[in-house]
Amino acid sequence: MNFASDNVYGVHPRIMTALADANGGTAPSYGGDDRTRTAEEKLKEVFGCDLRAFLVTTGTAANGLSLSAITPGYGAIICHAEAHIAVDECNSPEHFTGGAKIIGLHGPAGKITPAMVEKTLKGFIRGEHDPKPKGVSLTNATELGTIYSPAEVKAFSDMIRPRGMKLHMDGARFANAVAGLGVTPAELTWKSGVDVLSFGATKNGAMMLEAVVFFDLALAEEFAYRRMRSGQLVSKSRYLGAQMMAYLEDGLWLDNARRANALATRLSTGLRQFNHIRIPNPVQANEVFAVMPRELYDRLLASGAKFYDWMPDSLGDGIAEDEIFARFVLSFATPEAEVDEFLTLIAKG
Amino acid sequence: MNFASDNVYGVHPRIMTALADANGGTAPSYGGDDRTRTAEEKLKEVFGCDLRAFLVTTGTAANGLSLSAITPGYGAIICHAEAHIAVDECNSPEHFTGGAKIIGLHGPAGKITPAMVEKTLKGFIRGEHDPKPKGVSLTNATELGTIYSPAEVKAFSDMIRPRGMKLHMDGARFANAVAGLGVTPAELTWKSGVDVLSFGATKNGAMMLEAVVFFDLALAEEFAYRRMRSGQLVSKSRYLGAQMMAYLEDGLWLDNARRANALATRLSTGLRQFNHIRIPNPVQANEVFAVMPRELYDRLLASGAKFYDWMPDSLGDGIAEDEIFARFVLSFATPEAEVDEFLTLIAKG
Amino acid sequence: MNFASDNVYGVHPRIMTALADANGGTAPSYGGDDRTRTAEEKLKEVFGCDLRAFLVTTGTAANGLSLSAITPGYGAIICHAEAHIAVDECNSPEHFTGGAKIIGLHGPAGKITPAMVEKTLKGFIRGEHDPKPKGVSLTNATELGTIYSPAEVKAFSDMIRPRGMKLHMDGARFANAVAGLGVTPAELTWKSGVDVLSFGATKNGAMMLEAVVFFDLALAEEFAYRRMRSGQLVSKSRYLGAQMMAYLEDGLWLDNARRANALATRLSTGLRQFNHIRIPNPVQANEVFAVMPRELYDRLLASGAKFYDWMPDSLGDGIAEDEIFARFVLSFATPEAEVDEFLTLIAKG
Amino acid sequence: MNFASDNVYGVHPRIMTALADANGGTAPSYGGDDRTRTAEEKLKEVFGCDLRAFLVTTGTAANGLSLSAITPGYGAIICHAEAHIAVDECNSPEHFTGGAKIIGLHGPAGKITPAMVEKTLKGFIRGEHDPKPKGVSLTNATELGTIYSPAEVKAFSDMIRPRGMKLHMDGARFANAVAGLGVTPAELTWKSGVDVLSFGATKNGAMMLEAVVFFDLALAEEFAYRRMRSGQLVSKSRYLGAQMMAYLEDGLWLDNARRANALATRLSTGLRQFNHIRIPNPVQANEVFAVMPRELYDRLLASGAKFYDWMPDSLGDGIAEDEIFARFVLSFATPEAEVDEFLTLIAKG
Repeated sequence: MNFASDNVYGVHPRIMTALADANGGTAPSYGGDDRTRTAEEKLKEVFGCDLRAFLVTTGTAANGLSLSAITPGYGAIICHAEAHIAVDECNSPEHFTGGAKIIGLHGPAGKITPAMVEKTLKGFIRGEHDPKPKGVSLTNATELGTIYSPAEVKAFSDMIRPRGMKLHMDGARFANAVAGLGVTPAELTWKSGVDVLSFGATKNGAMMLEAVVFFDLALAEEFAYRRMRSGQLVSKSRYLGAQMMAYLEDGLWLDNARRANALATRLSTGLRQFNHIRIPNPVQANEVFAVMPRELYDRLLASGAKFYDWMPDSLGDGIAEDEIFARFVLSFATPEAEVDEFLTLIAKG
Repeated sequence: MNFASDNVYGVHPRIMTALADANGGTAPSYGGDDRTRTAEEKLKEVFGCDLRAFLVTTGTAANGLSLSAITPGYGAIICHAEAHIAVDECNSPEHFTGGAKIIGLHGPAGKITPAMVEKTLKGFIRGEHDPKPKGVSLTNATELGTIYSPAEVKAFSDMIRPRGMKLHMDGARFANAVAGLGVTPAELTWKSGVDVLSFGATKNGAMMLEAVVFFDLALAEEFAYRRMRSGQLVSKSRYLGAQMMAYLEDGLWLDNARRANALATRLSTGLRQFNHIRIPNPVQANEVFAVMPRELYDRLLASGAKFYDWMPDSLGDGIAEDEIFARFVLSFATPEAEVDEFLTLIAKG
Repeated sequence: MNFASDNVYGVHPRIMTALADANGGTAPSYGGDDRTRTAEEKLKEVFGCDLRAFLVTTGTAANGLSLSAITPGYGAIICHAEAHIAVDECNSPEHFTGGAKIIGLHGPAGKITPAMVEKTLKGFIRGEHDPKPKGVSLTNATELGTIYSPAEVKAFSDMIRPRGMKLHMDGARFANAVAGLGVTPAELTWKSGVDVLSFGATKNGAMMLEAVVFFDLALAEEFAYRRMRSGQLVSKSRYLGAQMMAYLEDGLWLDNARRANALATRLSTGLRQFNHIRIPNPVQANEVFAVMPRELYDRLLASGAKFYDWMPDSLGDGIAEDEIFARFVLSFATPEAEVDEFLTLIAKG
Repeated sequence: MNFASDNVYGVHPRIMTALADANGGTAPSYGGDDRTRTAEEKLKEVFGCDLRAFLVTTGTAANGLSLSAITPGYGAIICHAEAHIAVDECNSPEHFTGGAKIIGLHGPAGKITPAMVEKTLKGFIRGEHDPKPKGVSLTNATELGTIYSPAEVKAFSDMIRPRGMKLHMDGARFANAVAGLGVTPAELTWKSGVDVLSFGATKNGAMMLEAVVFFDLALAEEFAYRRMRSGQLVSKSRYLGAQMMAYLEDGLWLDNARRANALATRLSTGLRQFNHIRIPNPVQANEVFAVMPRELYDRLLASGAKFYDWMPDSLGDGIAEDEIFARFVLSFATPEAEVDEFLTLIAKG
């Protein structure tokens, strides 16, 4: 019963097979191979538009690199206060951008609103004494398992585009957002004004693979240099290309996400049956956040279940002293039986 | 006949198998898994000492991160003018170190000497107007397929250590150096005063894997933060650990290197038979550099052979207008028959 | 009636005279001159201890450079949410430190407490996913004209020192704090655990002059390089040394500060007479913050008075829609008559 | 007899007077004052064009900031191997640009040629493995007291402009170059394709003052943020504006430069009389470089003369073991009698 994170699970068998299949003979290195090129072409098909895609190995790198294309060191990026770029990446965005400010706003259910951003921008009244606002970064699905709809995304774009700001989407769990909403990848990105997307694959079945996807092609112009100088241009790139090809092939990426999302629904539905557990936010992707008695939390951990407690900061009314705000992440590979076993374990209490 | 680089070849079957074997069930992420821990322990065995090892995905990252532990932004690192950190990494060392100066010295056969470094240091007479010399970086095996012996390495250490400088070894082809010299990994590193090593695996059979290995444990103290903020802490770290375990298991890494080195010897021995080809430097690892008529070069490429021409800057007497300085890289996976086929092709000329 | 800032006033006549006096003949450049050396010696006398002082031209540079000696790019500095380093310096601390995180905490009256810092540190539970807390920066006098006492300062030091963190004091208005408290410079700094001080002079009578003062001598070790590479090593350094000598001579710096503080008291005493004006925080240095009707604010500006409205974020209960949170800064050079004139102007309302 | 540098002399009396005159009353800070604005207008007059000028306090900052507007961290700037930005600023250009590579080329008499730059650019054949060439920086007058003519400058611009590269001029001794050539400031800058100029004033009579002057107005667009975040926005900016106004008033800047240049000619003419002294490069500005016997050098220093020996690297044929390559810098304030006294001293030998 491991709900600690979606990255505790391994690689999807079809992706592992693709890696093995890629292993014969020689191939040009540093992105010059056929698989890397095909992966980019496949991404164009998936998103239904022209784009530029750069494969990298981690989500932190994808985010940092994406932001570096949007903001110089004297700029500011606005995001949710609990966004990965704000609190989980050890100043990586600052490193990649050369010192830009990451401004985290507090909003319920892991989400911010255009009004919040606008209010923040109104505080930037002192010219060069403030940093220059350069972009907004939305995490979708969010850190709290909720989702921004295309309309919500577009509202950000409509507000910031006239101000010369760019819209980044941290899509470490992009597949789960698309699957949860039942929209097309296009609708959730470029049709809603997203300029650059960190397209996650690792959490959803790849080994180590993310893509920086530019819908605003101008931003991609010298991006190859950025990737190289950050140590993210992989020499045997065919093994990134192979992962991405398999990930997209026959909709594997969405199938995986749908399965994980369904498990989250199954778990949350189960949890809601218990009076001493409450689920404050909607469950829209592959994560469930629940407030539960600390006593129960301790018992579950002692029984071998793995999951983390979470900062309750985003809960408007907080939690009680004897409560825990627990996070459960469901993966494409989580056995359904473990969800049921876990619910049974609680019931035994 | 592909001698373009050792990274055009794939992953050694035993490493690929190890990746597949690592794929069942769950494992802690971000380096908390058993395989990552075991990989570090195995490195201690291989080097016969206590050390700290951090797995990363590319050689450029390994180098940049290593140097960032040695020098602040106001420091300087001295290396060969053709070192990878000087000319092949798009300012990556500057990025990772926050702006340190990479000072490349010209020396024959891809090598520098302590005397050259000492002369350079003597020019640093103006206090804070100069950067502060913080380290020397030796590439071993070098960019020109030559090798520094333990005694040569130690001579650098003996000279710089009293000045508070550190010694880095870029070991993208470390295995080839160890195999070529017939020494122990310990003799070529910490016993010769190396403080931190970029321990390469990708070129020699891994998929994407390098390790930053600290023999000076103090340098490793907060290194985990450096790796994280550069986007090099892989979430599904078991797949790095698995590669490293297989790479070291039963001496695979040295077997691979020995095979590649032997092929280089085979090729160079063959090339030396031709009057119109000369090999200016000793062939000590898995690379062969040869001066040949441009006409021959064109014919070989036209016949489908793959290899690069190289900057002849390091050749004291240069090359003629109608000559090419060609590089041939041999891999653990290069078919021996292709070496022979290539020699036959030349002979046909 | 200009209360906009203490930097709208000029240079104290004795400092201007010192600059003119410094103008004859030749002097070694880049800090090698007698005046620069004497300035450092005088600072040792003023603080009653050994120290290292580095003269620079702006407060932003003094802060950024100070912090760069405390934290690497993967570190974090904790300060008040309205601290100059957090919101007034266009990411300058990030620039100088190579990307460190500046974490602003909200506290009343422009002040934070050790308890707040401790709570923040307790949230740093995820190893290298969080930045490494490296220091606390206290602004004294604060951005809201209040003061930390030596005991208050020491409480921070006592808490963070065992954690290996350093204590920085942004003393852009350090003189006003010392004068307001009636303590010695030593008591407010090294005796209370301050490791490095941005010792301000510009606001209090100098032309362009601040000093980075290290009480922790180890932090100063390679600081000359930091200053140089940031473009803050002035060639004709005698003109910085001369300013500092005159600033410290015969206690000019404290006389200036006492005068400015006294004017702030005079102004606040006067303002308190009006029922429609309230002064939420104690007036302890040379700044007065008052909540007043927007109508009055508009009338005063229209009458030619110069002062700024301020973010009311730090006021627990905020202000009403028709109110303004106004800031008045008093300088060593503010004519006393203008304070009285201003109060008369309000009374006329 | 102090020929150590032009910065060992003080401030021109007219500039000192201007500072004193600026000292009454209040003035807006951070560049909002009349003097700063007037200074910019005066620069437009001097250069006969529209431009944007930003006042800063040091030449190192002016250069670093200028370059940061031209190149991102993954870029490269090409200059002479002895340029101030390459060897005298402790990695400051790397700091300001976020890690760009400064590529120094060796050329006689302190000068490089477009052909040298072109050859270097031809070596950038490996895409993102190389940094992206973004600009050329010419020092004028050069570090060796020689001058680029407008035609020479234009030849660089003509070559790099089609490649999207920008042209920077390090004009720490710009006045000496203009005076030495007898051309207009316009001819030597924007009419010859210079995009941004570090316009020096400190060495030529100011206290601490340089201007970053943009002829390419697009480069200036967000430059105010760059200056601020580097700690170079001076609060009491009127004292920078006042210096610049006086510096430009009635051609003081060119008068000063002409006087210094004339003294250099006087000194070099005198030195050429001695058989044991040779002056390898033309003396075109305010510096004289002479090869002399080490014995003489020692005697002159012992007699109290102040000047530096210089790296003889730029001399094609080098110098003998018992020789010194000596630098003499003449200032607007150097007493003519000291030049004669110095020549007499040599003759006594």
